Amino acid sequence: MALAERIMAGEIRAAARLMRDVDDGFSSALEELKILYPYTGNAWIIGITGPPGAGKSTLTDQITAAFRAQGKRVGIVAIDPTSPFTGGAILGDRIRMNRHADDEGVFIRSLATRGALGGISRSTGDVVNIMDAMGMDIVIIETVGVGQDEIDIVRMAHTTVVVMVPGLGDDIQAIKAGILEIADVFVVNKADRDGADRTARELSMMLDMGKRKDGEWLPKVMKTEAARGVGIDDLVAEFDLHKTWLLDTGVINRFLAEKNSTVFADMLKERLFAEVHGRLVQSGELGTIVEGMGTRAVDPYSAVEKVLSGISLVEQPQSR
Amino acid sequence: MALAERIMAGEIRAAARLMRDVDDGFSSALEELKILYPYTGNAWIIGITGPPGAGKSTLTDQITAAFRAQGKRVGIVAIDPTSPFTGGAILGDRIRMNRHADDEGVFIRSLATRGALGGISRSTGDVVNIMDAMGMDIVIIETVGVGQDEIDIVRMAHTTVVVMVPGLGDDIQAIKAGILEIADVFVVNKADRDGADRTARELSMMLDMGKRKDGEWLPKVMKTEAARGVGIDDLVAEFDLHKTWLLDTGVINRFLAEKNSTVFADMLKERLFAEVHGRLVQSGELGTIVEGMGTRAVDPYSAVEKVLSGISLVEQPQSR
Repeated sequence: MALAERIMAGEIRAAARLMRDVDDGFSSALEELKILYPYTGNAWIIGITGPPGAGKSTLTDQITAAFRAQGKRVGIVAIDPTSPFTGGAILGDRIRMNRHADDEGVFIRSLATRGALGGISRSTGDVVNIMDAMGMDIVIIETVGVGQDEIDIVRMAHTTVVVMVPGLGDDIQAIKAGILEIADVFVVNKADRDGADRTARELSMMLDMGKRKDGEWLPKVMKTEAARGVGIDDLVAEFDLHKTWLLDTGVINRFLAEKNSTVFADMLKERLFAEVHGRLVQSGELGTIVEGMGTRAVDPYSAVEKVLSGISLVEQPQSR
Repeated sequence: MALAERIMAGEIRAAARLMRDVDDGFSSALEELKILYPYTGNAWIIGITGPPGAGKSTLTDQITAAFRAQGKRVGIVAIDPTSPFTGGAILGDRIRMNRHADDEGVFIRSLATRGALGGISRSTGDVVNIMDAMGMDIVIIETVGVGQDEIDIVRMAHTTVVVMVPGLGDDIQAIKAGILEIADVFVVNKADRDGADRTARELSMMLDMGKRKDGEWLPKVMKTEAARGVGIDDLVAEFDLHKTWLLDTGVINRFLAEKNSTVFADMLKERLFAEVHGRLVQSGELGTIVEGMGTRAVDPYSAVEKVLSGISLVEQPQSR
């Protein structure tokens, strides 16, 4: 109990402690998260994604500085693509964002993308909730890559930023389709490089082809040089425009309903599986099924059906 | 019934039809898959992954030609990263692998990575089973990227190939950790490009650092120029070495037990969720939960627990 209260009082050590407890799967962590949940929903969540080498960390650093200059407190969740076995995420904590290291108004947490209990989206959601409840005005989720995992993660964000760099050439084609649909803002970073204008123009053309309907948000393509701080103020102003648009149009309500529905579904999926799978392990039935699959005496399709047919939801008799 | 029998007789049209039925989620497809399952387990499955632009499709094409020259039948599952909304996967079917288009011994199926019922790994597994049951000697799973989705997919393969190209520079660092653990063979493709030797040397060094234990398979780094057919025979010979090693050491048994366990678990997770979530939608409880999350009157952690507490597994009374 004390932990949740200390977090709501803004104590960073208490928040870090709860995040570790969540990682370790302590059941006490769940109780703390339940207490904190009613105090979430105030932070504006910004998702930043893009291919490796696009300069996302530097950009996040500059955006953080800009928000700090406005007096806002900033939480950062950095999803680190390296394996937990190599300690990538822990190292990342140390080398990132040195200049904010002594700033009480900035809280950085790295998460490894693998080995996370209940999947990386779930862990990210828990960490965002903790930062939100502790009073961070802005939470930035920074993730590498443009696969389904990353798309799931940045979908939690109110404002999604996709960062590109000039000169990716044809490779951009392979990843463009999924990206067009999730970005609220495109950034062409390293805009001093050759080909920046061309990359920006190609992105704009792709957006024009996508033709969003009337009343939908039209993503802009912004150019930055994060390493020199160029274009950051315009970018942060664009975030504000997007926020105002979401609130003024009421689109925020549809967004939040969809997001809450997804959060609940993801959580249900993981815990439901853990519960039922755990029982099958305990009863020894899992061993029988897997062995049977090996000799082809059992097929997995029928085995799953048999388990499902045995399930009843005691509290929902009307749905049977 | 007729469909499964026609597939086992090697009829490509019947197999294509069942794959469509699987995609469309027809319950009849499940019945056919159950019939086919006992006839699976004969194909050797090769997974090929790597970043966009590494030349995986060309390499797959050349490997296919090499296996065809040995008289083997080859199935190819190409996981297309483009959105289903843009029809990427369908277009992919048409433009890929033209030279095998009239070859009855080659069967190509593209899958989109998004919107797949029950997740892309599940769909891939079903398609592989169909190709296996229809008598394909080799099934190649080709996928783009090195995220968790791709790792899950190539884990189904007996032999996993990770394709790199020279000149990715520092970006390789960001993705290397997860890759080291899954590859049985590394390919540096486009080996005529500047820096090929350096990339190969760096990969070899990383492998040496990884230091696999005695009795474990030591992945080799092979160089190819897929566009000109250079290095393909050596690569295919290496696949054979890996297969022989898996069989001779008996490691294949551990591999298959783990794979079957994962296949069952993935299937259980998806269908369990679909079943319980469906009941919550029907009973209206889902709407109440999501609405409550919006006003913060309900927290998702408690809502999930409430659903779980109502679940009973009728056929496993001993595990309650």
